[in-house]
Amino acid sequence: MDELNQVATAFVKYYYEKFDTNRSDLLSLYQPDAMLTFSGDRAQGPEAIMKKLNSLSFRKIAHDIAGLNIQVQPTFNNGMLVVVSGQLIADDDSDHPLMFSQVFTLNNANGQWFILNDVFNLSFV
Amino acid sequence: MDELNQVATAFVKYYYEKFDTNRSDLLSLYQPDAMLTFSGDRAQGPEAIMKKLNSLSFRKIAHDIAGLNIQVQPTFNNGMLVVVSGQLIADDDSDHPLMFSQVFTLNNANGQWFILNDVFNLSFV
Repeated sequence: MDELNQVATAFVKYYYEKFDTNRSDLLSLYQPDAMLTFSGDRAQGPEAIMKKLNSLSFRKIAHDIAGLNIQVQPTFNNGMLVVVSGQLIADDDSDHPLMFSQVFTLNNANGQWFILNDVFNLSFV
Repeated sequence: MDELNQVATAFVKYYYEKFDTNRSDLLSLYQPDAMLTFSGDRAQGPEAIMKKLNSLSFRKIAHDIAGLNIQVQPTFNNGMLVVVSGQLIADDDSDHPLMFSQVFTLNNANGQWFILNDVFNLSFV
């Protein structure tokens, strides 16, 4: 489990770094049949997913990468389930951080990890 | 997707009905290698999982089954990923409902659905 945790943590940190600084790099992390559910909106395939992720109304998003809560379990086919929760700052509005949760399943192909499932939700409280 | 949603919704409602009224019936829903992460505590296998679920300090738990938010995606091996969020009432303290999230992966074996992964978290806000 320690190794899974390390891999998942590294993957998730990389994902949010890219999301916040160079979002188009996420394209290569989604496998061809990947699915995204983003606050209820659905997209399938890397191109459709990136179209959704590039259409967000916020100009700037900064995830609190140091403060992420990450839980990992092994799943089917030597994949892993990764459940993330944390905070993000939208458009530099640091007085009003937003809580979010994101669930990934990751699949290993030739030593690389790819996203098969991605479910993102903001937590309205 | 409609069929997946229907199956997932029926499964989740059954799960919480049993959780709240006859928790020991959940044993048969977990497959032999199932894993639970419950507010950070880990258990593997149906017996260990049920030991954890039966050890909760609340005498009574009532999930708001009608108000559940359920998101579903197909995943590996014709399984499904189910992301649930909602509220529960502990020990009849209906003035202070608790927010929770729970992530399942479900696996089909001979027409029956079983839980492989289960990650439960209370949302402290």
